[in-house]
Amino acid sequence: MKLQSFLLFPGADYLQEGIMGSIFKERTSVDEALRLFLENISPLKKTEEISLEICTGRVLAETVISERDVPHYRRAAMDGYAVRASDTLGASPSNPVMLQLSGHVEEGSSTWVHTGAAVPSGADAVVMVEDTVATGDIVEIRSQVYPSKNVGQIGEDIKKGDLVFEAGHLLRPCDAAVIASMGLDRVKVFRKPVVVVIPTGDELISREKAGDVPPPGTVLETNGLMAALYVDKWGGTPRCIGIVPDNPDSIKEAIKVNLDADMILLSGGTSVGKRDHAPQVVSSLGELLVHGIAVSPGKPTALGIIDQVPVVCLPGFPVAGLVALYFFVRPGIRRLASIPKVPELILKKRLAAKISSKIGYVNFIRVVFEGDRVRPLAGAKAGVLSSVSKADGFVLVPENVEGYEEGEEVDVFLIE
Amino acid sequence: MKLQSFLLFPGADYLQEGIMGSIFKERTSVDEALRLFLENISPLKKTEEISLEICTGRVLAETVISERDVPHYRRAAMDGYAVRASDTLGASPSNPVMLQLSGHVEEGSSTWVHTGAAVPSGADAVVMVEDTVATGDIVEIRSQVYPSKNVGQIGEDIKKGDLVFEAGHLLRPCDAAVIASMGLDRVKVFRKPVVVVIPTGDELISREKAGDVPPPGTVLETNGLMAALYVDKWGGTPRCIGIVPDNPDSIKEAIKVNLDADMILLSGGTSVGKRDHAPQVVSSLGELLVHGIAVSPGKPTALGIIDQVPVVCLPGFPVAGLVALYFFVRPGIRRLASIPKVPELILKKRLAAKISSKIGYVNFIRVVFEGDRVRPLAGAKAGVLSSVSKADGFVLVPENVEGYEEGEEVDVFLIE
Repeated sequence: MKLQSFLLFPGADYLQEGIMGSIFKERTSVDEALRLFLENISPLKKTEEISLEICTGRVLAETVISERDVPHYRRAAMDGYAVRASDTLGASPSNPVMLQLSGHVEEGSSTWVHTGAAVPSGADAVVMVEDTVATGDIVEIRSQVYPSKNVGQIGEDIKKGDLVFEAGHLLRPCDAAVIASMGLDRVKVFRKPVVVVIPTGDELISREKAGDVPPPGTVLETNGLMAALYVDKWGGTPRCIGIVPDNPDSIKEAIKVNLDADMILLSGGTSVGKRDHAPQVVSSLGELLVHGIAVSPGKPTALGIIDQVPVVCLPGFPVAGLVALYFFVRPGIRRLASIPKVPELILKKRLAAKISSKIGYVNFIRVVFEGDRVRPLAGAKAGVLSSVSKADGFVLVPENVEGYEEGEEVDVFLIE
Repeated sequence: MKLQSFLLFPGADYLQEGIMGSIFKERTSVDEALRLFLENISPLKKTEEISLEICTGRVLAETVISERDVPHYRRAAMDGYAVRASDTLGASPSNPVMLQLSGHVEEGSSTWVHTGAAVPSGADAVVMVEDTVATGDIVEIRSQVYPSKNVGQIGEDIKKGDLVFEAGHLLRPCDAAVIASMGLDRVKVFRKPVVVVIPTGDELISREKAGDVPPPGTVLETNGLMAALYVDKWGGTPRCIGIVPDNPDSIKEAIKVNLDADMILLSGGTSVGKRDHAPQVVSSLGELLVHGIAVSPGKPTALGIIDQVPVVCLPGFPVAGLVALYFFVRPGIRRLASIPKVPELILKKRLAAKISSKIGYVNFIRVVFEGDRVRPLAGAKAGVLSSVSKADGFVLVPENVEGYEEGEEVDVFLIE
């Protein structure tokens, strides 16, 4: 009988062996799950030296201390005439001071300087050209200047020995220019975390192999693509591998050969069905921290650690997978990569319609902009990724809130 | 006499020829300057087909209409038993319905299905495994289901012929997955605008050539690097060329050979001094739209059009250059690239100290976070780029506002 039922519906004989027992009896709160996950993740120590041309978005792995003064000479801040300030005492349009034009500056003489030029040694100020009239070898100075006026002092921008950036600084284009101004052309940054994406599922077909419509019961693999693109966007380096079938040994093998990565994402097979092996495999190879999280969609998400490598089991339903990416993979990558906390773009919007929410779960509600308001997407199932593509952002309804009324103001997170 | 003064201070004989006359008598407001600039820019029509693997952040150049139903078969949404819903009428834990396990579904029989599997043709619902007990070739159904329960209908996600994305949509990773699910692996997007960055200035030294501290009066070229990295960040493709000396013919030549680009940035030489040729060159080759803008720093910024190619003359003072990049290059690239308007991250913060501002100018005030507040960076000159690197964001003080008091709430823009 066992054999017969096995032939009829392969795997059915697993059914008595505790599937009922493994239904999520407990759910960990999102906050607690994230806390557990992050406290098991250590920022990567590995660094690399990269060119300033590609440093945007990278995190400095060491302090940057200037070995130079910038500027390294007394720099004219204006086009004009370098002078001794004392020579300009009382100068005005009605009472100009006449100075001799000369190649150097001493009492009674002046030299033309353009913005950025070195101010000659005898001079201590620059009179802007607008306040002068030059005629032949004489320049009329029509304004009094104080010493150091329009002169950028040596080290005014950066002094030799200045600590210009702390380790951990997230590099912006303007920072690259500052570092370049110190005569550096490379920086030491933390290596990006390598995040391996392992799609699992007997029903999956590789996108490369799918020319025509695949047969019924088979699905193009797209969750892995989504995960990889988010990994890239959030500061990791995705490593994509082929589809792994729904069997524990194959999944184990795929994990083992990728334990050199900094994070492992298993997509699919994370629920409590007989083909859901991912959490058990994580448990057998390392530690399963959490399985079953109080978020909807996304409940089957599992989190674990294998040989110090954090593992996220992403639900196969694409919207649930997206939620797990946002809630756990994004902060996980940020911690691995030492990316500093930056303010999030959160919009305050009024609801164009009521939101109903499941008590006991953080509810991830997709919304679209509608004028000044946001409208929740009604009836959007976790399996319907196109509902996310229609959405501009999401609203999170906390576990203890039943929903929000039309017209209520909510925080909207944009979907990146 | 002319010759002598020329030798002493090259170019001084230009001085009588209208430098005084060309001092900014008028300033265009930022809004008006931007309006003039943008109305002269047309979104690029050129497109390219790219792989979904690299589509994040690109803009769709055509509508995406699905040629398939997704899913393309009736898909089980749960692990469980495919049934005829009518067979489950009245089923409950205390009064289960017994069905024969079979390879197909008809009245009185049922088949195991896993999540994502095809629902057999005779079935119209799936009973989740949690509501069943299978023993041998019999399954007890302990819950009543209605027709279509746990069955994802054909086209539930996307229907054949659905317009899934409009042209002009900014692609996110989740969108890539949706497009992939329709069996597509490439998308047609607008080509990124090529933005050529032309650093000008006799005082500039290429960073490549600068091993040791450069001689006094020379400056490492860093504004071009900053511009190129922002271009890249904002959705353009930077093209960097070598330093061009401060003479009109060289600048003209550099522009002419780059008129195949979609935007031209001239860095430096944009003020009203005798070495400031950029605006005049723009004027001689095309149309100078604006020279002198009511923003501080950034006043010398010039905007023009040559052969339909927008040109921005960026001031050489790095902070002023950054302001011009933010105020004009960023919106210009977005318009060229058809990047849709997205909400900006603007933080509401109270000031930790007073801001004084120049009336008649939009003032760009660098600020640092200090707990819950922001503190303006005092005495930060336009030539001191390190002041930007110290800053977390900026506050814009409008032209008609004298400043803000300590404790006042202001809008803070993060520096990207």
